[in-house]
Amino acid sequence: MINKDTQLCMSLSGRPGNFGTRFHNSLYQQLDLNYIYKAFSTTNIEDAVKGIRALAIRGCAISMPFKESCIPFLDELTDSVKAIDSVNTIVNNNGHLKAYNTDYIAISKLIKQYQLNPTQSVMIHGSGGMAKAVIAAFHDNGFKQVTILARNVEKGTKLSQKYHFPHTSQTQEAHDILVNATSIGMSGGIEADQLSFSIDLISQASVIFDVVAIPVITPLINEANRQNKVTISGKEVMILQAVEQFILYTGKIPTTQQIEVAAKIASQA
Amino acid sequence: MINKDTQLCMSLSGRPGNFGTRFHNSLYQQLDLNYIYKAFSTTNIEDAVKGIRALAIRGCAISMPFKESCIPFLDELTDSVKAIDSVNTIVNNNGHLKAYNTDYIAISKLIKQYQLNPTQSVMIHGSGGMAKAVIAAFHDNGFKQVTILARNVEKGTKLSQKYHFPHTSQTQEAHDILVNATSIGMSGGIEADQLSFSIDLISQASVIFDVVAIPVITPLINEANRQNKVTISGKEVMILQAVEQFILYTGKIPTTQQIEVAAKIASQA
Repeated sequence: MINKDTQLCMSLSGRPGNFGTRFHNSLYQQLDLNYIYKAFSTTNIEDAVKGIRALAIRGCAISMPFKESCIPFLDELTDSVKAIDSVNTIVNNNGHLKAYNTDYIAISKLIKQYQLNPTQSVMIHGSGGMAKAVIAAFHDNGFKQVTILARNVEKGTKLSQKYHFPHTSQTQEAHDILVNATSIGMSGGIEADQLSFSIDLISQASVIFDVVAIPVITPLINEANRQNKVTISGKEVMILQAVEQFILYTGKIPTTQQIEVAAKIASQA
Repeated sequence: MINKDTQLCMSLSGRPGNFGTRFHNSLYQQLDLNYIYKAFSTTNIEDAVKGIRALAIRGCAISMPFKESCIPFLDELTDSVKAIDSVNTIVNNNGHLKAYNTDYIAISKLIKQYQLNPTQSVMIHGSGGMAKAVIAAFHDNGFKQVTILARNVEKGTKLSQKYHFPHTSQTQEAHDILVNATSIGMSGGIEADQLSFSIDLISQASVIFDVVAIPVITPLINEANRQNKVTISGKEVMILQAVEQFILYTGKIPTTQQIEVAAKIASQA
């Protein structure tokens, strides 16, 4: 039951969903924490961030289109945010707003968990906020043979210069690991039924990593499963990054079982 | 269960309590409304109000010390607010913040409910935000013989000039209706065990009205009960004004029974 001591955590996004709200509230209930979580949207990111500080809202997840535009209004950027200029998490410590990128943290953890080999070649498709997190995570995990596939030539060039990875806007060249960091395959998008990589490229790869989380089985993951490839799904990124947020907001570490229960409830949304 | 469509209502006060949170959440549950309510405090009223607008928070109760200081940041003042320069409720209609004073509305309703007679003499003790609501409500209900008892001479003079009611800083003169609109008798305050009016003045009155709501039985109400006077308690004001807020936020009118259940739950806080 909500009372005066209940802490509020929240999200800000252009199109709020139910995943974060259900995931975090489930963990609060399971761990018996006096917290609630609610998704918000805004048309004024500056005043929204000022409101987080003024109302002592404990934490805030940041999604599209605010991952970069919120930065001028924050007090401190952690290294992951500085590296990629993209925020997905704000922690409010007594009015001091500290920014994190738990997508970067989650992708880095998945690279280790799946024991991806830094000597393998990687192709990363995308140049937006999530792509920056993916590129930085592979770079920081020691991968040298990374190619950036960017439809936006300007953004691709920038990322290429920053990480000294080649970039291209079209390719047929085979890579061991293919990562989709675009919105291709995302439910409700204009490219919902499309593949981020050709069937031929998928057949020549060993690992297919899709950051798109909705649906869980994107056309890319579906094709990779059909070809018996190792797959890493956007749902895994979404859950891991949310767990990192939960730990930052509450200081508590949920068990694997508690995470599974929360993820199951959140996925029914 | 909270989801992306859940509406948030809130309060802003220097010392948040549990009454509003429990009262409103109980009514939301009873009427099966997708709303939640939570109490907040702030050290920056301007940014807090900007946050209400930017986060599309549906409604906000305003308590001490923000009842006047919030005014510059609002979009529209209703007549009750204009009359007394004191806000206790903000309603957010798509970013347009409209201010009400439901204390004024509640006191006005209680004057009618208890059939207080405008020909009777009234003494109102106090000159703060709540006293202004009380004075305006008695004035607007046609009472002519009203005396303002104000320890703060400057504020008392201002109110006296505005309503053409005499004011005094000390009195032994008998009145039919005595109203305490100070914090005398309030739990936790430095005057918690004191009486706003002398035992002698109480004995000469017929109705004792205390706006202090915590405790429900203040020393003043206790003494009035002992003398078998008609009493109107601060709890009645608190509940009625909260019902008015509920109606403004949700557009729904709760039944008397639903209000009683909510008030009972809120009073256990």
